[in-house]
Amino acid sequence: MSSEVNAIAKPPSRDSSEESYPPIVPGASLLLALRLANRPILLIGGGVVASQRLYFLLESDAHITIISPGPLHPSIQHRINDPSTSSKITWLDRPFLGRKDEIKVKDYDLVMTAIDDNDLSKETCELCREEKVMVNVADIPPQCDFYFGAQLRKGPLQILISTGGLGPRSGAMIRDLILENLPSNIEDSIKGIGLLRADLRKRAPGVGGKLGQERMDWMKEISDTWGLDLMKRFNDEELRKEILDKGWESRKILGPDDLGGESSSWTQAIQRTLGTIDWTAGIGGFGLGVAFTSLGLMILQRQGRL
Amino acid sequence: MSSEVNAIAKPPSRDSSEESYPPIVPGASLLLALRLANRPILLIGGGVVASQRLYFLLESDAHITIISPGPLHPSIQHRINDPSTSSKITWLDRPFLGRKDEIKVKDYDLVMTAIDDNDLSKETCELCREEKVMVNVADIPPQCDFYFGAQLRKGPLQILISTGGLGPRSGAMIRDLILENLPSNIEDSIKGIGLLRADLRKRAPGVGGKLGQERMDWMKEISDTWGLDLMKRFNDEELRKEILDKGWESRKILGPDDLGGESSSWTQAIQRTLGTIDWTAGIGGFGLGVAFTSLGLMILQRQGRL
Repeated sequence: MSSEVNAIAKPPSRDSSEESYPPIVPGASLLLALRLANRPILLIGGGVVASQRLYFLLESDAHITIISPGPLHPSIQHRINDPSTSSKITWLDRPFLGRKDEIKVKDYDLVMTAIDDNDLSKETCELCREEKVMVNVADIPPQCDFYFGAQLRKGPLQILISTGGLGPRSGAMIRDLILENLPSNIEDSIKGIGLLRADLRKRAPGVGGKLGQERMDWMKEISDTWGLDLMKRFNDEELRKEILDKGWESRKILGPDDLGGESSSWTQAIQRTLGTIDWTAGIGGFGLGVAFTSLGLMILQRQGRL
Repeated sequence: MSSEVNAIAKPPSRDSSEESYPPIVPGASLLLALRLANRPILLIGGGVVASQRLYFLLESDAHITIISPGPLHPSIQHRINDPSTSSKITWLDRPFLGRKDEIKVKDYDLVMTAIDDNDLSKETCELCREEKVMVNVADIPPQCDFYFGAQLRKGPLQILISTGGLGPRSGAMIRDLILENLPSNIEDSIKGIGLLRADLRKRAPGVGGKLGQERMDWMKEISDTWGLDLMKRFNDEELRKEILDKGWESRKILGPDDLGGESSSWTQAIQRTLGTIDWTAGIGGFGLGVAFTSLGLMILQRQGRL
């Protein structure tokens, strides 16, 4: 698997010292997860697209200044009225005036416009580029320094699917496909492994160095050994203590079978095997086998050979 | 499916006018795809982590200034020597001096440090925050305005998986899981639907308005009807012309069975069915069926009933 991944999403590996370097294929975007807590963001527009932007910005704990004459999209109005979000939003009930406006784009970390006025969008984009503020103009890719793509969030897990603007709907379809194939409650597994990592950092603190490398290697092997589904068991504090005491302290990798838990190793093995079988194909094959053998025996019997 | 998606990655929908709004769950990152062509990026460090940053920045067509005394990681040195990438990189063969350096962080769109000197990293982070330049300090999350997470690229398709720093290895495992479940050659499908979208925009140009909405609705329905796998057939220019002539012009949605193509609908249906069968389970079941029936008949025969 790992070699196939490297052939596709191919940064130089951390441990390999081999001298073969994947070719650069330009034209990509740089995909990032921005931390926006309390950062000032300017949102120009008050329609449905602006309401989608607002949703993601609120989830990121940003402070959002909305410039748009009312009435706003009901979802935006709801967030302004709702006490749980109202303090994160400043609403200016008027049109944005571009260059002449007293609101200056350079006072914001990101600017997003979602308005029908193409001239004002263009002016805003130019302003932002002069001031080196990253801007997104809804539905006009050449005026965008960043795109949103299709998004998925399950607790601490967030996934962005970008098609570079070629197929917005395909991106959403890929998101749905990913969602179907993720283990259920994947968010609990991410939370579990996060708790184990935090406990480990308390025992082995510091940045970088030999200890940092050992910590990273141990976490990697523990993750691979337990897998995305069983990691959710690390939400159990006693289990975390046990694996750190008996595993980390002697730099050993203990798997689910090496620790006390709700099921013993052979019942787990059976459960795993049963879980991977395609029962439809198996039962279909069984039926075909019965039919095939019966037919063969019937023919043999007719021919008097049985 | 769609309601489940909305329960998870839940921005207000474009078409619904219902008055129920998903609750905001703060603490998320804002996931973005940045367009960095020719933009100046400052990369401080010359080791393996810096080499990974450089790889993604070169794929994004950015211009990268690297400050680090040599010798550099061989992969970085390779990119500096390679004529296909050398013009995108400026290398300053010396340590970064922080506040006293003649290189000023405000002249760059993003700053990334990947060095072992924690004090210099901290000073660089503070400098960037004073100048409102987004910064990433490798392995020190509190000094990061953005994270990278696990990345996947297949042609125009790019996917970012972020665990909010809780489980870097889990993110990579989810990337591998996604890769296993994507249709093979998904990049061709994205390219195909992108070509269809571009051809449609030539017939129905402009931003927004009634035509823009019709265009978006038609593309959405065509995407859903053809699906992620068959979209790759839109790389055929004649097929694109046919679906636009016979479909778009009369606002009809034509599926794979409504158009001339390399295979008729029933052979496609058989191919699809054969492709979804788990042959291991099927053959196993067949064997069990043969054995079961043979055994039953043997017993019947022994008992003299046949």
